[in-house]
Amino acid sequence: MSEEQKNRATVEIYGQQYKVVGAESAAHIRFVASMVDEKMREIGSMNPVLDTSKLAVLTAVNAVNDYIKLKEQYEKLEIEIKKLKD
Amino acid sequence: MSEEQKNRATVEIYGQQYKVVGAESAAHIRFVASMVDEKMREIGSMNPVLDTSKLAVLTAVNAVNDYIKLKEQYEKLEIEIKKLKD
Repeated sequence: MSEEQKNRATVEIYGQQYKVVGAESAAHIRFVASMVDEKMREIGSMNPVLDTSKLAVLTAVNAVNDYIKLKEQYEKLEIEIKKLKD
Repeated sequence: MSEEQKNRATVEIYGQQYKVVGAESAAHIRFVASMVDEKMREIGSMNPVLDTSKLAVLTAVNAVNDYIKLKEQYEKLEIEIKKLKD
């Protein structure tokens, strides 16, 4: 989600408001924001001494880790499909 | 990555050190951290007035958004494989 795209949504994450801009619909942006809020609360409850900034960084670390793991599974499926088609 | 798992790595993200614990190897944790650092610098360069905390939250928003998009593609592949196998 960057500054160059069209839809805007104001969302609340961990008690703070953000104006998010993206190509996705406002509803999608709000859904993503609610997932980040949930993940931050989950990680925050396990690490109560973390400040918001560190908590947000660790949330990003978790999200990127989930992405990489899914990407590996995705690549396996692509190979499987290629074999099935051959 | 949570407190219950085994491997530990000290990583630097956006000039700040973090001790990250995960089931993944220390090398994998460092790779994920370097991706988060890169994403934060990319978003930070487009939004120079953001403080670290907001920048980290927006990085998490981007990472979760990427995850959801990949998840949708993954589910499409699963349906395609199911059809090919039937």
